[in-house]
Amino acid sequence: MAQTDGPGPQRVVAVLGRGVVPAETPILRADDLGALRGDGIFESVHVRDGRLWLLDEHLARMVRSAARLELDLPPAAALVELAEQALAGWPAGVEGALRIVVTRGGEDGGPVTVFATLTEVGPKQLKGRRDGITVATASLGYPAGARSEAPWLLGGAKTVSYAVNMASQRWATAQGLDDVLWVSSDGWALEAPTANLVWLADGRLWTVPPVITGILAGITTRWLLEHAGELGLGAGERMIRPADLTSADGVWLASSVRGLAEIRTLDGKPLGPSGETARLREFLGFPG
Amino acid sequence: MAQTDGPGPQRVVAVLGRGVVPAETPILRADDLGALRGDGIFESVHVRDGRLWLLDEHLARMVRSAARLELDLPPAAALVELAEQALAGWPAGVEGALRIVVTRGGEDGGPVTVFATLTEVGPKQLKGRRDGITVATASLGYPAGARSEAPWLLGGAKTVSYAVNMASQRWATAQGLDDVLWVSSDGWALEAPTANLVWLADGRLWTVPPVITGILAGITTRWLLEHAGELGLGAGERMIRPADLTSADGVWLASSVRGLAEIRTLDGKPLGPSGETARLREFLGFPG
Repeated sequence: MAQTDGPGPQRVVAVLGRGVVPAETPILRADDLGALRGDGIFESVHVRDGRLWLLDEHLARMVRSAARLELDLPPAAALVELAEQALAGWPAGVEGALRIVVTRGGEDGGPVTVFATLTEVGPKQLKGRRDGITVATASLGYPAGARSEAPWLLGGAKTVSYAVNMASQRWATAQGLDDVLWVSSDGWALEAPTANLVWLADGRLWTVPPVITGILAGITTRWLLEHAGELGLGAGERMIRPADLTSADGVWLASSVRGLAEIRTLDGKPLGPSGETARLREFLGFPG
Repeated sequence: MAQTDGPGPQRVVAVLGRGVVPAETPILRADDLGALRGDGIFESVHVRDGRLWLLDEHLARMVRSAARLELDLPPAAALVELAEQALAGWPAGVEGALRIVVTRGGEDGGPVTVFATLTEVGPKQLKGRRDGITVATASLGYPAGARSEAPWLLGGAKTVSYAVNMASQRWATAQGLDDVLWVSSDGWALEAPTANLVWLADGRLWTVPPVITGILAGITTRWLLEHAGELGLGAGERMIRPADLTSADGVWLASSVRGLAEIRTLDGKPLGPSGETARLREFLGFPG
């Protein structure tokens, strides 16, 4: 494993059918529809103890994203092999983020472009997990039900067309904040640009219903809610307005790489700290 | 100029600082945020008689897109040089589409990725220009005013995050139609995934106001409306509901490469043919 000057390993890049290539190798042609049209899908998977956490669930979601975009996804076994190639030289002690990307490929047709990158989990993500995050609400423009009625809006698909996601996070950063909670034009909390909303109220862990809102169904969130009983907690989905989060017993953004980050201020109003944050994080298997 | 087996020239690819490279050369790294996040902008420019039509106007719009995304755009002179490099070997008799793409570059920072591609105008676009197009309305999800109030939604920026644009066009194709006219959740006509709406009524050419709707301000549309007086026509911007297009004296989708394509059916209802289509197309300088 090549090392950077710093403590962590370098980025690993693997390409379907080629295996690991030097990370600086250009791999996408100028006419790749991933870069020309954001026409592709991806998954981010947490790497812990040298293993990929919930890879099967991520690959199952990728199948759903591919169907929504009518993308010709390679067989799961090929994607698993690609992920394992990227992971082969990774130090077991280093927390990582594996990204699998599938674009529509060249503009004139032909096969999809498939590659994986593996990087160390960044300091900003570790800090959010440890110290919590400051968040502002921002409109996503849509009414909450708009995307469920319009499949061409690609609700629920994890595409690489994330320009608005990135712009939303830049808008938060410009205000000295860590992240954004998108709200619908009719005032419901939806999701964050790269995470789901989870909160604890009435002894239950809640999240926003993906099907009726078109938000991305989170892998980490689903695992947590499905296993909530082991913590003595109930679980459910419901719609909530941001103002109603202030009375919750804990509010978090959940995602595959950051894990759980507790929202400590929302639009300037203090939230928490929740006594459950450390227990939930440990239950999810994320280092503190 | 290398030739394909067919009649037209091959794709030309030019990279900032390198000039023309073989079209199949991979030029983007795996961590390029253009492909990972759709985090980039582009312009498409019509190539006619070996020249770039309205290049300055396209580059001015690119400056606005870059500002909206906080992208570090190279100087206009560098982009002009890049475009001229791509164009240098292009046969003057072949109608072309030049695309200039600027992505945020590598995930760990560093310079933007800048390249241009030049291809022949495709048969589907020529057919739409010649025969007109069949169009279905489809909701864009937003109320008409949503994006003007939320800069992080990137209204008016021409980003490469076009997954929804492409999915909307696939949805039309699956119904045997040529294109989509997006409407707002409150029922106003907005734009097409890669074109503006233009219609003729009361002796004026109209389009949808970009500023209040967050649609992309079209270069071809603006040129046409600014020069409408030379055709003895007025011009203006206003909101319209799709049903009210049926009484217009002509309805078109306008874009830089296709030029003008007359909408001949909208949601199955016949429109036109307008007696003005050929005159407007010729005035815009597009071959029939």
